[in-house]
Amino acid sequence: MKPSRIYLDYAATTPIHPEVWKVMGEVALNVSGNPSSIHAEGRLARTVIEESRKTICKSLNASLSELFFTSCGTESNNTILIGAVRDLGVTRIISSPLEHHCILHALDHIARHHPVEVVYLPVQPTGQPDLEVLAEELKRSEGTKTLVSLMQVNNEIGTTIDLQEYGQLCHDHGALFHSDTVQAVGYTRYDLDRMPIDFMAGSAHKFYGPKGVGFMYIRNDHTLQPLLYGGSQERNMRSGTENIAGIAAMAKALEMACDTLDERSSHMMARRSQLLEGLKKVIPGLTVNGPPMESCSPKILSVNVPEGPRTDLLLMNLDIAGVSASGGSACSSGVESASHVLRHLPVRDGDKTVRFSFSPQTTAEEIDRVIDIMASLTSTTAQVLSSTKD
Amino acid sequence: MKPSRIYLDYAATTPIHPEVWKVMGEVALNVSGNPSSIHAEGRLARTVIEESRKTICKSLNASLSELFFTSCGTESNNTILIGAVRDLGVTRIISSPLEHHCILHALDHIARHHPVEVVYLPVQPTGQPDLEVLAEELKRSEGTKTLVSLMQVNNEIGTTIDLQEYGQLCHDHGALFHSDTVQAVGYTRYDLDRMPIDFMAGSAHKFYGPKGVGFMYIRNDHTLQPLLYGGSQERNMRSGTENIAGIAAMAKALEMACDTLDERSSHMMARRSQLLEGLKKVIPGLTVNGPPMESCSPKILSVNVPEGPRTDLLLMNLDIAGVSASGGSACSSGVESASHVLRHLPVRDGDKTVRFSFSPQTTAEEIDRVIDIMASLTSTTAQVLSSTKD
Repeated sequence: MKPSRIYLDYAATTPIHPEVWKVMGEVALNVSGNPSSIHAEGRLARTVIEESRKTICKSLNASLSELFFTSCGTESNNTILIGAVRDLGVTRIISSPLEHHCILHALDHIARHHPVEVVYLPVQPTGQPDLEVLAEELKRSEGTKTLVSLMQVNNEIGTTIDLQEYGQLCHDHGALFHSDTVQAVGYTRYDLDRMPIDFMAGSAHKFYGPKGVGFMYIRNDHTLQPLLYGGSQERNMRSGTENIAGIAAMAKALEMACDTLDERSSHMMARRSQLLEGLKKVIPGLTVNGPPMESCSPKILSVNVPEGPRTDLLLMNLDIAGVSASGGSACSSGVESASHVLRHLPVRDGDKTVRFSFSPQTTAEEIDRVIDIMASLTSTTAQVLSSTKD
Repeated sequence: MKPSRIYLDYAATTPIHPEVWKVMGEVALNVSGNPSSIHAEGRLARTVIEESRKTICKSLNASLSELFFTSCGTESNNTILIGAVRDLGVTRIISSPLEHHCILHALDHIARHHPVEVVYLPVQPTGQPDLEVLAEELKRSEGTKTLVSLMQVNNEIGTTIDLQEYGQLCHDHGALFHSDTVQAVGYTRYDLDRMPIDFMAGSAHKFYGPKGVGFMYIRNDHTLQPLLYGGSQERNMRSGTENIAGIAAMAKALEMACDTLDERSSHMMARRSQLLEGLKKVIPGLTVNGPPMESCSPKILSVNVPEGPRTDLLLMNLDIAGVSASGGSACSSGVESASHVLRHLPVRDGDKTVRFSFSPQTTAEEIDRVIDIMASLTSTTAQVLSSTKD
């Protein structure tokens, strides 16, 4: 029997949870009105959206007026960054070169079209933006309307930052704080009412919800204009007929994620440790990207495999052997070259980086098999894998 | 037995077709990778997207490189208008005051932030933009990079324009032609390769597809920059992880719509005529918005009911009587005041406008019932409706 594939790329995207799909179907098939319509079908659709908003706001401890539905994390992050410059008068943005492209490319666009200075912090070898330099930059920013944008969990290497620590530093210096939390929502507890965060973004498909729906959090203190102009949906923050079924499914997915957060984290942390320890044993010279476990997302493990006679097409060979992993992020994994993130980290020339990312369903047996496969693929003595015989 | 409701608001949104939902489920549950990933799951997801693109391009006779997936019609229209100004050097835009808000509000935004002159054509009493004035304006535009943006089917009154006629006039004068075709896609045949159209937009939920997914057509001659910056999906025209299941469902919905276009049109045209003739008989002084049948979308009938002692809350009373219709568009139907479209038409003061919109499943019996209900609700002699007794 052909062994089933092992998917370890949950940071790229997660499959929709069957319970979430059930909710999505109930809404898609039974709630067919346009939420802007005043008739019964429209009012029902409106109710579904507002109940979903309540569910998500409860999970995040945010006010209902602070949550806006969008089509994805990219749209949320773009809306926030562009809005902060256009509508709040931000003229200085401090970020990190390790952010997701939906931050970096949006910042490039902003710098081209607006009189805004964009500053990138140096990063520590672990991937964390340097806190001391941030403090210096914030001092330099005083008197200048400044936004700091730093991701909570790095999508390629799992590095996390403490939102409380970074956000408080920003607020102490009068700067706004935005966090791209796309990889963290559903894996972290938030108490937004008490946290020093002005903006954040979420995407349902990262936490077992559907693709094509996300949200943005905009603290009540701030009034942004939309990125999309039209029917003035979402209290004029996001025009376009609402993806009702997607929104309801996202709410269900986040509710489930929060209900089981601790056990899911422990499970993934165990699988991550198992894989790391196993790989260290079978691959001499293997190194890890990112900080020690306590500052790393339990769902992501990024390792560097030393150059060897057979490591050239490691990801492709892993795929052939039935293991789905990634080099950098999915969004840039079409090419097997060092990603913009890895280029800023102390990765040795010639090393092949592999990102494994886990789900609460990833089993110890799967991890053992991945360790065996990785051992075979990187072994300097020719060897034929049992799982490639089929 | 309580009679079932009669939904006649298909221009606001259509329910997802069961066959479309089936496709959506197959993809959502079985295609769980990220299309940007290079492993097997990613490649499968990529294949689904590209097959969907082929299906839609075949329906429209467009090249694969001209179609881009988005989250909705609003996003498509916004991307095109903003891109034409920012990237193609358009400094003059000619449009109509009867466009959807996703055009009008985007144009307001553009006029505020870019050195662009926006000109609104006068409209005929039927809602059609004046072709002679358009020709004059185009002459005046010569030497100035100009975009004309006119919707194919007006969402409130059903007025259609001949894309060939308007588009050719634009091209004859060297102007670009964009059409907001959101209400027309799935109800019209396109041969984009041969039509004088530079840009158009579609939204799946208007043709029995899911909410939260749309597309834009950008003729190969033009290179726009995206509105959303990030992972460079859709050949860098629209960043954000693709809504794979939504895209596949949209392709199925459009394919089905095109396969049955003629019989669906005839059916809706018959229901429209039946309703109009019936209403004329029971409501003295009733007038119709829009042009004669041959220049009107078969799915939309907008009528003005003369002011009477009981017409004040006509839409709400219709809703209570089990009929879902709309005043203007869904996007502005939260308020029962004359819409921006109706204000430009020869509607008598005090008239109540009702937009009925039809589906291929709308039955003659339903239409008869609606005529009865409308008669009762607008009758000047007090009368209790049978359908409100329950």
